Amino acid sequence: MTDLSNASPGCAIAAADITRWDLETDVVVVGFGAAGASTAIEAARGGARVMLFEAASDSGGTSALSGGEMYLGGSGGTPIQHAAGFKDETEDLYQYLMMTGGPNPDAAKARLYAEGSLAHYHWLVAQGIEYKTSYIAERCIEPSTDDCLIWSGSEEAWPFASGATPAPRGHCPKFLGMGGGKYVMAQLAQQAVAAGTEVHYNARAMALIVDHNRHVQGIAVKIDGKMLAVRAQRGVALCAGGFIMNRDMVKRHAPLMLRSQYPLGTIDDGSGIRLGMSVGGATINMQEGFVTIPWYPPGSLVKGIFINNQGQRFINEDCYHGRVSHHAIQQAGDRIWLLQDHATYATSEMHALARMEIGAAGDSWEEIERELQLPHGALVNTVSVYNEYAAQGDDPLFHKAAKWLKPLNEPPFVAIDCRIDHCFYASFTLGGLDTLPTGEVRDEDGAIIRGLFAAGRTACGLPRSGAGYSSGLSLADASFFGRQAGIQLANTRS
Amino acid sequence: MTDLSNASPGCAIAAADITRWDLETDVVVVGFGAAGASTAIEAARGGARVMLFEAASDSGGTSALSGGEMYLGGSGGTPIQHAAGFKDETEDLYQYLMMTGGPNPDAAKARLYAEGSLAHYHWLVAQGIEYKTSYIAERCIEPSTDDCLIWSGSEEAWPFASGATPAPRGHCPKFLGMGGGKYVMAQLAQQAVAAGTEVHYNARAMALIVDHNRHVQGIAVKIDGKMLAVRAQRGVALCAGGFIMNRDMVKRHAPLMLRSQYPLGTIDDGSGIRLGMSVGGATINMQEGFVTIPWYPPGSLVKGIFINNQGQRFINEDCYHGRVSHHAIQQAGDRIWLLQDHATYATSEMHALARMEIGAAGDSWEEIERELQLPHGALVNTVSVYNEYAAQGDDPLFHKAAKWLKPLNEPPFVAIDCRIDHCFYASFTLGGLDTLPTGEVRDEDGAIIRGLFAAGRTACGLPRSGAGYSSGLSLADASFFGRQAGIQLANTRS
Repeated sequence: MTDLSNASPGCAIAAADITRWDLETDVVVVGFGAAGASTAIEAARGGARVMLFEAASDSGGTSALSGGEMYLGGSGGTPIQHAAGFKDETEDLYQYLMMTGGPNPDAAKARLYAEGSLAHYHWLVAQGIEYKTSYIAERCIEPSTDDCLIWSGSEEAWPFASGATPAPRGHCPKFLGMGGGKYVMAQLAQQAVAAGTEVHYNARAMALIVDHNRHVQGIAVKIDGKMLAVRAQRGVALCAGGFIMNRDMVKRHAPLMLRSQYPLGTIDDGSGIRLGMSVGGATINMQEGFVTIPWYPPGSLVKGIFINNQGQRFINEDCYHGRVSHHAIQQAGDRIWLLQDHATYATSEMHALARMEIGAAGDSWEEIERELQLPHGALVNTVSVYNEYAAQGDDPLFHKAAKWLKPLNEPPFVAIDCRIDHCFYASFTLGGLDTLPTGEVRDEDGAIIRGLFAAGRTACGLPRSGAGYSSGLSLADASFFGRQAGIQLANTRS
Repeated sequence: MTDLSNASPGCAIAAADITRWDLETDVVVVGFGAAGASTAIEAARGGARVMLFEAASDSGGTSALSGGEMYLGGSGGTPIQHAAGFKDETEDLYQYLMMTGGPNPDAAKARLYAEGSLAHYHWLVAQGIEYKTSYIAERCIEPSTDDCLIWSGSEEAWPFASGATPAPRGHCPKFLGMGGGKYVMAQLAQQAVAAGTEVHYNARAMALIVDHNRHVQGIAVKIDGKMLAVRAQRGVALCAGGFIMNRDMVKRHAPLMLRSQYPLGTIDDGSGIRLGMSVGGATINMQEGFVTIPWYPPGSLVKGIFINNQGQRFINEDCYHGRVSHHAIQQAGDRIWLLQDHATYATSEMHALARMEIGAAGDSWEEIERELQLPHGALVNTVSVYNEYAAQGDDPLFHKAAKWLKPLNEPPFVAIDCRIDHCFYASFTLGGLDTLPTGEVRDEDGAIIRGLFAAGRTACGLPRSGAGYSSGLSLADASFFGRQAGIQLANTRS
């Protein structure tokens, strides 16, 4: 038997070298976040024996760090959307996912998700996740209450509103306050265990075991300092998060993300992706990441305008906070300001969290311009063009919707400092293994690697562009496509 | 023996399955462009038996499509730089390479190159490449004469000029007219053959052959429809170009490059990179590419300003054409214009090639603004701020150097149409295998893959950012680091 003690995620072990399997099961799941739990639930309910290995000492993963929000809709709308008076057609959800999927959206995943999202809502409810029948119309990031439905993307903003009828799709669980991810994960983890999943904590996946035909046979796992060879008759599902915490990988694959100094994650060391790569799994979209500064609420701030170091606007400010932030970090120079007048200015505790402070205040825009040491006219002209058109309910430059347009002409004026290198811009990665909607991992030629599946941020899923991200999309993608992987695994004969 | 007939670059063959080697040598080089030729020359001169496999029916590769320009300097300057009155210190070349290497420059390669670039100049001359002792001070892309030294990067432009003393470093060969790459390649190919390289044309590298310890043993090559197993005692060097012609790979790894509809390359199908990946070679920086519209000469155009679809400037226009173009394709919207007045407007045959035409003309900027259907004030304010400061020799927004600053106030005015989706924006990829300065290919952990080397655009070399590219950098990198690989291979004991 080969010496497993040097195993590393980047280097697969030949099955021929395994003389003894320490454990044996049908399905191995790596990681106990939303993707891993959902994979395990469906595989186990489908009749497969499932072993789940989680490197941490408890379930939850990075999913538990989130707000627990799921991006759901289509098929006419969820009960919560209905109650709030919204219809949400499948085609609108599909088009929105395609428009926001960056230059290379995954049409097959978007189609399957758009068609299955309502059923997924009911499935989540069946797992014990409660949703209050309530709707928050105001701009927010997460409710501080236990309310449910929010606008969590750029649905109403240009250019998306013209390509798909907008609907709010962010479904927050009935959990009081922020951080509902731990509540969602508690339900999913409980269901996974109830379905029969054998969970091993403090168990680190070290290397895939693959046969001569590139068919994944199992995995080497380290538990209590011992390396075990685990046979997976039907396959291995990698649900081990992204790579934002592996700063070397970020540097080499998504260097723009280094501008954000606040990586969001738990382990997220890229080891899931590395395991897949070790057997020829292709990675795609590795340069992409989500980045955001939580600059609203309050919603009145959306009536202000963002400017860069040149005093130029760069986005319609009624987009989702992450889309605005994505464009902010693409600007030349570190200085970004949010301009407000007396009528629109407001603050919230989010600003303290985000380290957003007033960078300049004055009774005229000329004064602000001088205080920010911007060239003469650079800021003033920007505001002047904006104000002239806003007075007519128009934003010909960036197409902010009329409801957010108001001339910024009521002194005093302020410039809120949103410097990239100073403020809280949080980030996580969106690139990963190239998978089919079934979760099957593909190689660079598009061929399936038998016995290997991936879901969640280990894969490249629906959320694949910082410019098009919506809150709730990662968790929805992880749980929905985790389920697809589980179903496929349950139906796989060894 | 395993059936080689299904071999593909993405899937390595186990050496244990090779029962007979059809060919045997010390060093295998894949690809006969600048990187492959330089690798072969040094390996053969160092005493190794070298076989080179080229998929096309002649030498040259994409290097032969180029202008033949090499980015050279440091150590006080080349004889051509000296004759033109320039000193070029090693530290300035190093700093320039570091500043232009994107968010993740390779300090070890930049250092080695800065120190060895002058010697590389002499080596190129020794290979028979002639350089005329002449200097063209005017802005150009390639001389239409046989002159040598040009400014081929952004050395004099902000922010680079303040971090490194500028010098012109583009060395064009003594070849009359554009397209000197075929002349350069003819010399290098001839030297490779003279050094004893056994060249096989119409020979396609199909798969690496690797042993159980991930030590590359050789390569499967298809010649005349037959698959041959070739043993490489010392190693295989992948010098097979980038992946700009593989549109699927571009879509998945560098989707922004899809905005350029004019890929520059010959084969460049990514197969070299794929071969490296098949044995665990890590790829880095895959999202990056070079893109350019050849918008100058004439140099007087540099005195104009570029604006985007919002009427905003986005770059100091005295940067290298590729840096300007890189920023152009990052702008929201497809419309890009180059504004000129009567004094600065000029045209050249490059504009016809680039499909740049006059999009609007008028006696006032207001007229141009209306003709371009830009919002009231959007263009006029941009020009007004620019003109006000240009009159004082200043560009506080983008820091264009004083020598290019002149108010655009002499009617008639024109807006030259540089639409992304209409004009000639050429592109090639800059991501590839992660290599040491020796050309040794690394895996995702940074460990060396024994017996595997890469150079040229199959590797990620000095040129690694469209924003920081300089003409001549690819050819210099390919030939210089090809040589390093050849030297390392010659010194490798099997």
